[in-house]
Amino acid sequence: MKNFILKDENAVFYECGYSCDNAIFLSLAGRKFFLTDARYSIEARELCKDTEVIEVERNLIKDARLFLRKAGVRELSYNPYDFSAGEWEALSKGLRIRFKARSNFSQISRIVKTEDEIKILKRAAQLGAQRFDEFAAFVRENGEGMSEEELFFNAELIFKKKGELALSFSPIVAINENAAKAHALPSKKRLRQGDLLLLDAGVKFNRYCSDRTRTACFDENFNFGKEQNFKNAKQQEIYEIVKEAQTLAIVAVMPGKKASEIDAAARDFIAAQGLGEAFFHSTGHGVGVDIHELPFISKRGEAVLKEGMVFSVEPGIYLPGEFGVRIEDVVVVRENGAEIL
Amino acid sequence: MKNFILKDENAVFYECGYSCDNAIFLSLAGRKFFLTDARYSIEARELCKDTEVIEVERNLIKDARLFLRKAGVRELSYNPYDFSAGEWEALSKGLRIRFKARSNFSQISRIVKTEDEIKILKRAAQLGAQRFDEFAAFVRENGEGMSEEELFFNAELIFKKKGELALSFSPIVAINENAAKAHALPSKKRLRQGDLLLLDAGVKFNRYCSDRTRTACFDENFNFGKEQNFKNAKQQEIYEIVKEAQTLAIVAVMPGKKASEIDAAARDFIAAQGLGEAFFHSTGHGVGVDIHELPFISKRGEAVLKEGMVFSVEPGIYLPGEFGVRIEDVVVVRENGAEIL
Repeated sequence: MKNFILKDENAVFYECGYSCDNAIFLSLAGRKFFLTDARYSIEARELCKDTEVIEVERNLIKDARLFLRKAGVRELSYNPYDFSAGEWEALSKGLRIRFKARSNFSQISRIVKTEDEIKILKRAAQLGAQRFDEFAAFVRENGEGMSEEELFFNAELIFKKKGELALSFSPIVAINENAAKAHALPSKKRLRQGDLLLLDAGVKFNRYCSDRTRTACFDENFNFGKEQNFKNAKQQEIYEIVKEAQTLAIVAVMPGKKASEIDAAARDFIAAQGLGEAFFHSTGHGVGVDIHELPFISKRGEAVLKEGMVFSVEPGIYLPGEFGVRIEDVVVVRENGAEIL
Repeated sequence: MKNFILKDENAVFYECGYSCDNAIFLSLAGRKFFLTDARYSIEARELCKDTEVIEVERNLIKDARLFLRKAGVRELSYNPYDFSAGEWEALSKGLRIRFKARSNFSQISRIVKTEDEIKILKRAAQLGAQRFDEFAAFVRENGEGMSEEELFFNAELIFKKKGELALSFSPIVAINENAAKAHALPSKKRLRQGDLLLLDAGVKFNRYCSDRTRTACFDENFNFGKEQNFKNAKQQEIYEIVKEAQTLAIVAVMPGKKASEIDAAARDFIAAQGLGEAFFHSTGHGVGVDIHELPFISKRGEAVLKEGMVFSVEPGIYLPGEFGVRIEDVVVVRENGAEIL
């Protein structure tokens, strides 16, 4: 792509190695520019790679417009979801530039990961898995009687590792029926022996995300391994169905297949057990500098899998008022199939 | 306002007492609607006040468009900064509705706080001030030799009070020359006796924000009081100028005055010391459910102050490579002037 403009923090970071919450990145005829205000310009100059830092004087959007006008650009690609309607109007108004709306062009350019990126994603996954183990040890020791709010607070603490790691997203910690709400707020509900506990959490390494979900039985052997022994027979039955659905989806991964085929591998199996309605989200999403990026592994996922694509595989079954189960890992597409990160 | 649409989480919360990261709120001829997906609809039904919850089937924006089409609305106000250019195109395309772009209409409607809101903001300010004291005690005991990263991590921990409190924003903790970067990333720089330490932090109570900044000298008497004794004479001199500028701005607050007059009270004093260029941001911003809302207390601030308006007063002086000083409190406009929250 010749000329483009970016505002999304992760997309900007991907291009130049730095970002902040008030910046615009421009790639114009091979030259790279980072426009930001006085609060960030010192750091930007230290950290942006091969990029000229321009300190804006009044207003980022208005100054970007002036900059574009002076640059004499004739054509510019942008992501219409990267700017608010008001910002885009203020930025583009009256400029003699052919603007090309290209949704997610940055994510499209990032969809296949390099081996260097895969190494970073693997390291993120390892760090995330270690945090799961540390949180499991904490819950085994201290979990009995703790509220979801307390568990959530401690999950954040443990996943952040005293501030060493950033989170991919705010963890989801949910007990029994709260696990049936796919994105539950932590409540005052307390953890008791025999309860089902769902944890969905991830950390970042070099800005790349990990993402993992486990559902486990809280008892004296509490752990986040995939082998679980629930006290409740229905929970065990549903758990085994989700586990099998996840395995089927992972096994289905192969270069050349469509994303929808991977989704169908999990979905059809769950539907065959009469539980199709209880799996109401898609099977997975790409993972990189964004926690949700391309490719989307869904019913209508048209992406054709290529070696180096990285995405989550996370089927779930949710029974409102009873409980929910989700199991998630991130995989990379290899020549012969999926490799779990 | 008769008909309007909102997507911003805080604005939506203000209208119905609940929000989540994938929702649209509609007020149509006095009826209130909350559109969200299956992940949030259970919680939304529990928590939305006087509002019908509509679970969307495919896509929030597309379903909102269908809903609006069926509702037979003729006119609808929206905030063009509340939707991405792409979302707004998808939502509004082909509808026979007169859309009225009204930037910040929600913030405008929230600019004067009720006594109930002021009580909540006061409580948030008290909780925030207590957190400053607790962090000061922690730094007095443990601060020596700690890096900014460690101080930042512990500030987050202490301000969150074991997860009881949400943060208004990610705290700024900066030592000496890093305090001259108005929004510095925490670094590996370590705190030593005699250093200057700037802390800008706030917590939320019932979703309303507190906001406060103090600049202090790290020594055996370390505290975040406004009386400070810096070892470095230049730091003391600059500190006293900022303190006086803040006092002048607070004293200038009076119903009927323009926001720019409050800004000028601080700015003119700093400029008279030959330091005008070193104060490069505005004097303050409104505080409510948003950490930055109306009115803006800036050079060009046209808002006329009214009783019940709540905003920060936070002049600063930043000397790149040396140090920075900022002092901030939140005030409410009362009949006879400012009351510090």
